[in-house]
Amino acid sequence: VTAPPPAPVRVALGQLVERFGGLCGGDLQREVVGFATLQAAGSDQLGFVNAARYRDDVRSSLAAAVLVTRADADRLADVSSRLWICDDPYLQFARIAQWFEAQAHARVPCGTHATAVVDDSAQVDSSTTIGAHVAIGAFTRLAPDTVIGAGARIGRGVHIGVGTVIHAGVTVYDDCEIGARCVVHAGAVIGADGFGFAKDGERWQKIPQTGRVVIGDDVEIGANTTIDRGTLDDTRIGNGVKLDNQIQVAHNVQIGEHTIMAAFVGIAGSATIGKRCMIGGAARIMGHVTIADDTVVSTQTFISRSITKAGHYTGYYPMAEHASFEKNAAVLRRLEGLRERVRRLEAESPTTPEPERPA
Amino acid sequence: VTAPPPAPVRVALGQLVERFGGLCGGDLQREVVGFATLQAAGSDQLGFVNAARYRDDVRSSLAAAVLVTRADADRLADVSSRLWICDDPYLQFARIAQWFEAQAHARVPCGTHATAVVDDSAQVDSSTTIGAHVAIGAFTRLAPDTVIGAGARIGRGVHIGVGTVIHAGVTVYDDCEIGARCVVHAGAVIGADGFGFAKDGERWQKIPQTGRVVIGDDVEIGANTTIDRGTLDDTRIGNGVKLDNQIQVAHNVQIGEHTIMAAFVGIAGSATIGKRCMIGGAARIMGHVTIADDTVVSTQTFISRSITKAGHYTGYYPMAEHASFEKNAAVLRRLEGLRERVRRLEAESPTTPEPERPA
Amino acid sequence: VTAPPPAPVRVALGQLVERFGGLCGGDLQREVVGFATLQAAGSDQLGFVNAARYRDDVRSSLAAAVLVTRADADRLADVSSRLWICDDPYLQFARIAQWFEAQAHARVPCGTHATAVVDDSAQVDSSTTIGAHVAIGAFTRLAPDTVIGAGARIGRGVHIGVGTVIHAGVTVYDDCEIGARCVVHAGAVIGADGFGFAKDGERWQKIPQTGRVVIGDDVEIGANTTIDRGTLDDTRIGNGVKLDNQIQVAHNVQIGEHTIMAAFVGIAGSATIGKRCMIGGAARIMGHVTIADDTVVSTQTFISRSITKAGHYTGYYPMAEHASFEKNAAVLRRLEGLRERVRRLEAESPTTPEPERPA
Repeated sequence: VTAPPPAPVRVALGQLVERFGGLCGGDLQREVVGFATLQAAGSDQLGFVNAARYRDDVRSSLAAAVLVTRADADRLADVSSRLWICDDPYLQFARIAQWFEAQAHARVPCGTHATAVVDDSAQVDSSTTIGAHVAIGAFTRLAPDTVIGAGARIGRGVHIGVGTVIHAGVTVYDDCEIGARCVVHAGAVIGADGFGFAKDGERWQKIPQTGRVVIGDDVEIGANTTIDRGTLDDTRIGNGVKLDNQIQVAHNVQIGEHTIMAAFVGIAGSATIGKRCMIGGAARIMGHVTIADDTVVSTQTFISRSITKAGHYTGYYPMAEHASFEKNAAVLRRLEGLRERVRRLEAESPTTPEPERPA
Repeated sequence: VTAPPPAPVRVALGQLVERFGGLCGGDLQREVVGFATLQAAGSDQLGFVNAARYRDDVRSSLAAAVLVTRADADRLADVSSRLWICDDPYLQFARIAQWFEAQAHARVPCGTHATAVVDDSAQVDSSTTIGAHVAIGAFTRLAPDTVIGAGARIGRGVHIGVGTVIHAGVTVYDDCEIGARCVVHAGAVIGADGFGFAKDGERWQKIPQTGRVVIGDDVEIGANTTIDRGTLDDTRIGNGVKLDNQIQVAHNVQIGEHTIMAAFVGIAGSATIGKRCMIGGAARIMGHVTIADDTVVSTQTFISRSITKAGHYTGYYPMAEHASFEKNAAVLRRLEGLRERVRRLEAESPTTPEPERPA
Repeated sequence: VTAPPPAPVRVALGQLVERFGGLCGGDLQREVVGFATLQAAGSDQLGFVNAARYRDDVRSSLAAAVLVTRADADRLADVSSRLWICDDPYLQFARIAQWFEAQAHARVPCGTHATAVVDDSAQVDSSTTIGAHVAIGAFTRLAPDTVIGAGARIGRGVHIGVGTVIHAGVTVYDDCEIGARCVVHAGAVIGADGFGFAKDGERWQKIPQTGRVVIGDDVEIGANTTIDRGTLDDTRIGNGVKLDNQIQVAHNVQIGEHTIMAAFVGIAGSATIGKRCMIGGAARIMGHVTIADDTVVSTQTFISRSITKAGHYTGYYPMAEHASFEKNAAVLRRLEGLRERVRRLEAESPTTPEPERPA
């Protein structure tokens, strides 16, 4: 008989304060079961304030305690008995929520499902969990505590590191490496052929893609994200990189450690992205460019050349009501003509115009 | 022995007119088998005109009858014996085509394929069809007349409503709910973790995503679309919502009833989309914004702030021949400078300039 | 016992020169094993120069021979003993690399895996390879030398041509056709319903999608790309078309022969794309438009109307540092007003302004 889902973990608030630190005005005896939004929280739940717009919701919240900064606490002095003051409420929330998650879902190895197909030459640790209808190819090695979700396909000669979780329906092509403690969400495809063709008259000749994908430790890869194998060298994803859903990483791309990218980011072939970059959703990065460490790119921005200086880069067409868009776009289509007209007016002007500033 | 594909359904035109209404000038005895485009239709097929550009094709079409509006019929008086006049030809086409579809593919429950893995604690109605290599987790409930395609992975504690069709290779994570009469196309991923991380020095700490995805009735979800589970609350898709392929819906998003979105739309975390909105392909909606009911967003538009007034909003860079683009883009890069030059010219001007209108 | 991976193929440089042509200054006796980048190449590997930026790397490379053009060879006369001169180094690289690939991975048919489910009525050639957990529907025909990867789902009445490789986890819906020598990468979905709904008050009525997807010969389809079936007619992909990852092709689209598209391209319904077009990443093509043969579209460009004249078309918002973007975008939002101000200045001007040129 299948075991029912576990009951929520209950813990005294005081124990959490002791474990995670900070100054808590709440009732330390009260048992709590986890987090909720301030509006939804019951008296056995915790909350947090990570943006000014949520601050006033503390007053009406039933939460047992709310993580806030010292500065926010000063503005909420009238409800100080509900506050749990800490340096970084969002980070504290992350850590405490991880703790609850670990209690509730302690990972118990389940072995290999009877319907899984594991090649005889594969090395599978006894602490792994391999789900239904998984296929694992020859010479593949699964380190201890890995979890392979139902229907995932892991090719030949793959290595997957300690504690990594591959969700259902992921495909990992031959010879790729995934580090320790990674999470790969459903439908992601790691190691498909890079997109390389040589023109041959009107036809295209395929360039065999013989590199691999090599992914570091502590990487998260979102659902239906695709990371192509390199042409000759490997495509490389650094330690601690976090990729959202439906991202495309082309062949030979290098992504530096702890860089984070939102959904739909597209990185063309052979681009090199620095460390600790933050790339907004649907941003595109041109092939062969280099992006400096710590660069921030806004949503929807097309990075069409290398960025050598860290900074915040943006380029998206501003939205407007459609009629207004139409009028402005009509002017944009002949913007150079408008500049010429201004130049002519300046030429007639009695005073000397200032020089144009460079782009 | 496998049954051959069914023969097409033949029905007298008169029976269709009686069932669906309208005024038909065609031969009511003629048997018809369904729809085709006006160019391709044979004399046992129907056609329709849903845009002025197709109207003249009626004259050369062999179709047994063509659905048209009264206004189009007046312009096609010379071929009135081919016309079937109705209020809304496209809607009438939809309904009649649905009827043909239902006749041709009457759904016969096929039970559970021998290779499917269904947890003992799952509740599966005897009228369901569960395909090859499906995996269904503990405590999951499948309502009557559901169909689960080959290789789909349905997690623990999922609920799927009456008559819903989950196509091949879909992944539904634990605890998600999908309503009645939904269609979820191949490769869609429902309930993967939302993308939430707290900065911890140069590293990122994962925020456990403990909410669910809750999908209403009559929802269609396209191939390889991803809908992430909420962080604390649920991600919610209202009744009658239609999502095309490769859409990304982030954690905590709410989509109102009967909203429709074309391919590649991306909705960032905690956005709230109104009812009956129409969102064009590759439009992006920023996190935490609210979009009013009945809003229309053009293709490729980035909605960077809340929309409180229904209307049609647009923002995409107009295409041009590349050389022209280059010239205009060069001016755009220093547009503020151009405005300054106009201001200087105005300052010298003998007449008082009008004030700039606000953006 | 599983066979170990094959040793790399070793071949004398002279044999390759004889087979593929060109003028080689290298040691023709030396045995080589394939290609590497110029930096990484060992003395038993080959290199190539396909862009000026790589030319100087030849001098420091250890490669046994480097494919170069005659023009590049003239500039590298000091290292002529390392050069292999040919008309088109990139194409020569493609052909030689294909040859090495074919030697190393000679395709040996493996039959049908015991866990695959193949309908009795399907026609499967004895030279096919069908992987673990594959499902193949009724009346489907697999031509000789096809390979179906683990977990792929092939519907009813599908035809797959000679030598085509369907990678793991692909879904092909009923009645679709895929030609000979195609490659379809993991997670691609061929033949899901086109996105068609008729408005019915505030609801949407589904238009049944009864067309198919018909794909020609020598087509490559990237990971997680989706190609929808037609509404009444078929969606058609011509011979030799190459589609990168995460592309969306909507219902009724026609793509001409040898057209190539980078990742994230989206083509809306009923668009017709010409032959030999090159479409950059994340470009979008509006529904019902026609694109001339040999058209080039830049990355991120939205093609909002038909293109009747081949050329290079572009439209993306230029990136800038965020502060600069903000200032320019503020002007862009009231660009029409700026033009009006220029017009007023011109009206006051003593000289007659030139007429505006049309957009």
